Amino acid sequence: MIIEHSQMEVETKTNLREGKGSVQMTLLGGRQLQKHCRILSEVLIPVGASIGPHSHSGETEYYIILEGTGLVDDDGKLVNVKPGDVVVTGGGATHSIEGTGKVPLKLIAVIVTDA
Amino acid sequence: MIIEHSQMEVETKTNLREGKGSVQMTLLGGRQLQKHCRILSEVLIPVGASIGPHSHSGETEYYIILEGTGLVDDDGKLVNVKPGDVVVTGGGATHSIEGTGKVPLKLIAVIVTDA
Repeated sequence: MIIEHSQMEVETKTNLREGKGSVQMTLLGGRQLQKHCRILSEVLIPVGASIGPHSHSGETEYYIILEGTGLVDDDGKLVNVKPGDVVVTGGGATHSIEGTGKVPLKLIAVIVTDA
Repeated sequence: MIIEHSQMEVETKTNLREGKGSVQMTLLGGRQLQKHCRILSEVLIPVGASIGPHSHSGETEYYIILEGTGLVDDDGKLVNVKPGDVVVTGGGATHSIEGTGKVPLKLIAVIVTDA
């Protein structure tokens, strides 16, 4: 099955996980994902906006950075990320991410569940 | 955990699934992925190169097109794909993909397994 980009559902989330501003999530795989895939979305985070800190247990989230730069709190450690980098969060670890730099931060978020 | 792009392992696969030429796969999540995630890679397919037809049973593969254009055989139906489009293949369906146009086709491949 091919899902054309223009047909994808886009959700706007404000203060996601108590983050700042609004982020846009494009549902890449439709509403009915593979059973162990909880999220497969393109996420657009404007400069200064963020997804607040939250943890992942029983699942792993991958943030694949596509465009822009961001500041990640990677389970307590602050790290700057750039296109090509990947943030891996699971096993109860916490992360947050904020758009920095001059252009919106674009990433793909994939969550794969354990059970 | 943050994996910097420069630290990622890159594999070159020639005639992948009996496709044409060579494709490059960058392992985005390292060698040890979440247990239901079999592949999480950036795939670079030069113009004219391809991944030949193959099916997916007991798992679902998502191709998220990032750059370039491609020709996909989507379980028997030929479809042109462009950045932002997603190819979803599971339940025993078959797919192949070839780089077309003028620049290499770049995509992210995610395979999530059922069991």
